[in-house]
Amino acid sequence: MRLNQLQQWLKTEQHDLAFIHSTENVFYLTGFYCEPHERLMGVFVFPEDAPFLVCPKMEVSHVKQSGWEAEIIGYEDHENPWDKIATAFQVRKLSEQQSLAIEKDTIPYARVEAFLQVIPKAQFVSVESILNQARLIKDEAEITILRRAATMADRGVEIGIGALQEGKTELEVIAEIEYELKKQGIRQMSFSTLVLFGEKTAQPHGIPGERRLRKGDLVLFDLGVVLDGYCSDITRTVVFNSITEKQREIYNIVLEAQQQALIQCVKDKPMSALDRTARAVIADAGYGSFFTHRLGHGLGIDVHEFPSLHEKSEGILKPGMVFTIEPGVYVPEVGGVRIEDDVFITDNGYELLTRFPKELRIV
Amino acid sequence: MRLNQLQQWLKTEQHDLAFIHSTENVFYLTGFYCEPHERLMGVFVFPEDAPFLVCPKMEVSHVKQSGWEAEIIGYEDHENPWDKIATAFQVRKLSEQQSLAIEKDTIPYARVEAFLQVIPKAQFVSVESILNQARLIKDEAEITILRRAATMADRGVEIGIGALQEGKTELEVIAEIEYELKKQGIRQMSFSTLVLFGEKTAQPHGIPGERRLRKGDLVLFDLGVVLDGYCSDITRTVVFNSITEKQREIYNIVLEAQQQALIQCVKDKPMSALDRTARAVIADAGYGSFFTHRLGHGLGIDVHEFPSLHEKSEGILKPGMVFTIEPGVYVPEVGGVRIEDDVFITDNGYELLTRFPKELRIV
Repeated sequence: MRLNQLQQWLKTEQHDLAFIHSTENVFYLTGFYCEPHERLMGVFVFPEDAPFLVCPKMEVSHVKQSGWEAEIIGYEDHENPWDKIATAFQVRKLSEQQSLAIEKDTIPYARVEAFLQVIPKAQFVSVESILNQARLIKDEAEITILRRAATMADRGVEIGIGALQEGKTELEVIAEIEYELKKQGIRQMSFSTLVLFGEKTAQPHGIPGERRLRKGDLVLFDLGVVLDGYCSDITRTVVFNSITEKQREIYNIVLEAQQQALIQCVKDKPMSALDRTARAVIADAGYGSFFTHRLGHGLGIDVHEFPSLHEKSEGILKPGMVFTIEPGVYVPEVGGVRIEDDVFITDNGYELLTRFPKELRIV
Repeated sequence: MRLNQLQQWLKTEQHDLAFIHSTENVFYLTGFYCEPHERLMGVFVFPEDAPFLVCPKMEVSHVKQSGWEAEIIGYEDHENPWDKIATAFQVRKLSEQQSLAIEKDTIPYARVEAFLQVIPKAQFVSVESILNQARLIKDEAEITILRRAATMADRGVEIGIGALQEGKTELEVIAEIEYELKKQGIRQMSFSTLVLFGEKTAQPHGIPGERRLRKGDLVLFDLGVVLDGYCSDITRTVVFNSITEKQREIYNIVLEAQQQALIQCVKDKPMSALDRTARAVIADAGYGSFFTHRLGHGLGIDVHEFPSLHEKSEGILKPGMVFTIEPGVYVPEVGGVRIEDDVFITDNGYELLTRFPKELRIV
């Protein structure tokens, strides 16, 4: 059980307590998925003592349904959960001076201060690297879910392309994609669906709106779904009705960059090599300054998770990793092309989870 | 200008710097709206010196479009933004010992540690109360947007009720609501749309799924939209086809609780009185233990913002405040009813922003 691994780590490293508060890591450790907004929610894990889970009272029944069998501390909106946490600490005889493992990258400073009220001489260490390392290597059950999530992302692109019509707005196309996916049982997209037309494709994170589709537009889809707690993320770029030589040139460069990066997807390769390979293809073609972001990012319970793939990434590829490969070239006023797949590193190469065709399409 | 007010506060309180990083407060202060995920984004404000804004390089053009005229520090994914921030501090001659105002409730501890690397003897104070107080009182332009956002939430409920059909799933109804709203130009819902049927309505934060609509089901809609950066939030509960006496009883109690709370919506009333009034109605009817959450929450750029309205809330109502009033009764196995409106406190009472009818409806 994953919680046991964390307990083992606490013992080995001689920390007294881990507090895991992020939706994603709580889900990873317990199977309980909850977005508590500003309310406190989290699991307190000890090297020897039994863990407990704190959550708003109205979530208690969900925690039970998720299979959590240890103590649950529910609190109402007018109560201060830290009072109840302090009591739970007393039962476990925590002293004033403790080594606490927390998610430093996401825990709000106010919660660190709340800890210090209860455990005045607490020292804080990061629990993220151990959790990142654990989440980095997906097991078979996770891969099965990620495959299905990727297939639904493929389906989203297919629906989107099918919805393209002259005069339609970006938002109308998004509405059709999400409608069809929801009808097929998708509860949640993994991020705000992106559909951009024409000059707007030149913004890597452009905002979809009322821009209407015109002949000759590049059309960029970037979307993904959440399925059983796991995310997918795909980008495809097509051309509507007719194409210019410049558009074709950019498309082919990005496709070549993506394919060269994929060829590098073999266990034991340095992650940085993937980014550098794609970047070199684009730079050699004279578009280096128009590839303004990293090559990709880890994918799993979070749509952006460890590792980040850029030219200075440390670490090597290992079987079980899942990440995106998504080079892009964005030329102001002309437009942008990005091609993104979800990649699973296997024992003898890689498997593409997203499989929507990538050859240049004029729709 | 709002940034000037913050500068003035820094001067008065003798703090050396404010760092504002949350999407919502950056938007409030600058008009720039950006969800940077794990990437660093934020505004550094000084009592005398010119502010600067840090963001991923690919967002720089959006910052300019939003009208920001001061310095912008863009960074690429392989760069450490704190190196560039340190340089910007040197230009402004910040010393080792400084009083820094930060958003303690949301700033990750790792960023506090990054600050301490650059300004080793920094002292941290919270900037949230001053920003919460500023955002608490909405100006006319904000009210105009909130009215329009509320009208689109009304429209969402109307679409949802229109979509109800025996055998349809919760997710299918959600798909239709969001499809129609997106077609009408809504880019984003303010939170995951909730449509729950039957026994599932007994969970205040139930998860919509494949449950199919049956005759005699309670149907709960909880939804809202984001419009020009501002949120709406409405809940309505209806009955499908036929009603039991128990359902009718619960509905009428919740409606009465909501209406009694609304009567308390007059400037200078203590916030706690609103919650207590609604809670008393429900408790007197014998359902006190089934109203398991607070009465409501502030509404604006965030769908849940300051203040929180519960029985121990401090503070009094003031003209310009906007918040939800949303009592609920959730009886396991039987079902739940919640009725929620967005309320704007005026000089002589209140204005309902959401206006979808509340009389018991058998659809």
